[in-house]
Amino acid sequence: MSALVFSSVAHAKAVAHGGPAAISVSQLESAQQGWCDALLLISKTHREGGDAKALAGKIIDAAYNYEMAPVLFKPTLAYGEQTFRVTRAGALAYFVGGDPAYPNDKGFALKPWAKARYVNAATYIEGNLGITMGHVIFTDTSGAETKVEKTWVFRRGDDGKLRIALHKSTIPYSPAAR
Amino acid sequence: MSALVFSSVAHAKAVAHGGPAAISVSQLESAQQGWCDALLLISKTHREGGDAKALAGKIIDAAYNYEMAPVLFKPTLAYGEQTFRVTRAGALAYFVGGDPAYPNDKGFALKPWAKARYVNAATYIEGNLGITMGHVIFTDTSGAETKVEKTWVFRRGDDGKLRIALHKSTIPYSPAAR
Amino acid sequence: MSALVFSSVAHAKAVAHGGPAAISVSQLESAQQGWCDALLLISKTHREGGDAKALAGKIIDAAYNYEMAPVLFKPTLAYGEQTFRVTRAGALAYFVGGDPAYPNDKGFALKPWAKARYVNAATYIEGNLGITMGHVIFTDTSGAETKVEKTWVFRRGDDGKLRIALHKSTIPYSPAAR
Amino acid sequence: MSALVFSSVAHAKAVAHGGPAAISVSQLESAQQGWCDALLLISKTHREGGDAKALAGKIIDAAYNYEMAPVLFKPTLAYGEQTFRVTRAGALAYFVGGDPAYPNDKGFALKPWAKARYVNAATYIEGNLGITMGHVIFTDTSGAETKVEKTWVFRRGDDGKLRIALHKSTIPYSPAAR
Repeated sequence: MSALVFSSVAHAKAVAHGGPAAISVSQLESAQQGWCDALLLISKTHREGGDAKALAGKIIDAAYNYEMAPVLFKPTLAYGEQTFRVTRAGALAYFVGGDPAYPNDKGFALKPWAKARYVNAATYIEGNLGITMGHVIFTDTSGAETKVEKTWVFRRGDDGKLRIALHKSTIPYSPAAR
Repeated sequence: MSALVFSSVAHAKAVAHGGPAAISVSQLESAQQGWCDALLLISKTHREGGDAKALAGKIIDAAYNYEMAPVLFKPTLAYGEQTFRVTRAGALAYFVGGDPAYPNDKGFALKPWAKARYVNAATYIEGNLGITMGHVIFTDTSGAETKVEKTWVFRRGDDGKLRIALHKSTIPYSPAAR
Repeated sequence: MSALVFSSVAHAKAVAHGGPAAISVSQLESAQQGWCDALLLISKTHREGGDAKALAGKIIDAAYNYEMAPVLFKPTLAYGEQTFRVTRAGALAYFVGGDPAYPNDKGFALKPWAKARYVNAATYIEGNLGITMGHVIFTDTSGAETKVEKTWVFRRGDDGKLRIALHKSTIPYSPAAR
Repeated sequence: MSALVFSSVAHAKAVAHGGPAAISVSQLESAQQGWCDALLLISKTHREGGDAKALAGKIIDAAYNYEMAPVLFKPTLAYGEQTFRVTRAGALAYFVGGDPAYPNDKGFALKPWAKARYVNAATYIEGNLGITMGHVIFTDTSGAETKVEKTWVFRRGDDGKLRIALHKSTIPYSPAAR
């Protein structure tokens, strides 16, 4: 077969490229902003008398990886024997409270949050996992700010969506408090 | 060619299996214990008048992923603008102090640590990354215990060794302290 | 908190391990045998007057990765401008024929196959992909054997199932035929 | 801490992004062209009386993944019990011949190749692996062309380089030849 024929074939037919697109930094940041926005929406829904628990459940199902695996979740204010919330029930209790199995949970997402934003110090992406480390700053409706240190590991699913496989949120260390 | 010949070929020749072995839970746990043991060794070397800084440097090079990428490292007692130590210098300063660029660092590994052990709440393994979440409990030479919450992301290199890509260590939340 | 308490916690609570299980050699071999069995089933269905095309469609959907991406499929007897079948339609035409867009296809799976087995020379597993290289030996209902060289790349989906991302099947080189 | 301070921190400090860069299509194509160029260089070195075997050894070490794992290599003209070359020795014998253990090998790279180019039909990239399927067209010094079907799986190492984990090369099926 002549080179001429091949050239025309090469020009006529597009190469079919496949495989999941690599996770990008902007995709990571969108997932982080999505978490912030979701928290605010639960808070606002609660303030307006809506069903914050139902909403929180939907958000957990969409944003966390509980359907596939235990999630390595350490919420900011969780402590003692209930420090780690590897099940969906533990996450839901933390966000909206009211679960007798988690008596210390008051519902972090029910607080009057007005704003939330992230500031990353570093990210790391490899394969299906994208990782962030930095702060999230919450502002409540009175204007008071709360800053937490937050690390997320997001997992990209076959559907292309990022879900939280690890979430560790903590109050910054303060030498004066010791 | 007859089936008989193929059967004999199949029996005579071993199938060559390749590809990096998957990260196992026990490999993850060995890496965690290795970190604990390394901390104790730096501490003991310091107590005995050895070169703790040189040792810490070797340990960081072997155990952390700084050669490949910024490491998402949030040490327990780091705070303020130096909360995150994405460079090797920042990690070394935290462990052994004495770096004018990190004036708040006293050298966490120079404390009189006698024992250190981890207790995992959850792990997650995918591809080249193995993740742990749980506690590490340190005991000093007086017998006093310090418990921290610790999350590691280990990366398996082409050499088969695990190196720390993320390390977040924090003091447990205590409602009484607030 | 005392070490005793921690020991009891560690013993009382199981560590939650997550992440997709690594692809095993036996899982790869099961997928290979599954392909062989599926071919025989299409052939048998055709001989018995069943709807071989409908069956082949279901098998392609279950066994090939067309839903996610173009598949790198080079069937044994495909040639010329239709050598590569990156679309589902091209795969279906190859297996059962009857598609005017693929006039050379007679339906490989419609041949009177009675047995099919694979003999691997080598495998390679990494991340979501498991790869095999070796032979497949087909035996028709008259007892005649056909041997092909076959390479598969299987992709493990989030559902844990392996699907064919690459399939290259060729007639062994024979110096006498040249 | 005020939002203003955080904004300035966010602006002053760059986020540190880590993790291996995803394999790109152009990186895949460079590796393919590199293979073609290397073949031509071995051929030219041989014609000019150079040490083609030594060169071929260096090229295999740089371009194939034998150091890490058995390579799934099926060269175009290999057949019978020596069809698959999972070891470096088998690859070297194929390219330059002269190995008594591989008596049928005449040295594919010693032929008088003048040009070589690839034409991809499809590619697939996931994690550390990048896959191509298509043709390679060789032109010898007399202007005669040889076309083969070729599939490569390249593995990206921690050093960022692509190495061949699978290479299957075959003569196109021709119904007239049967």
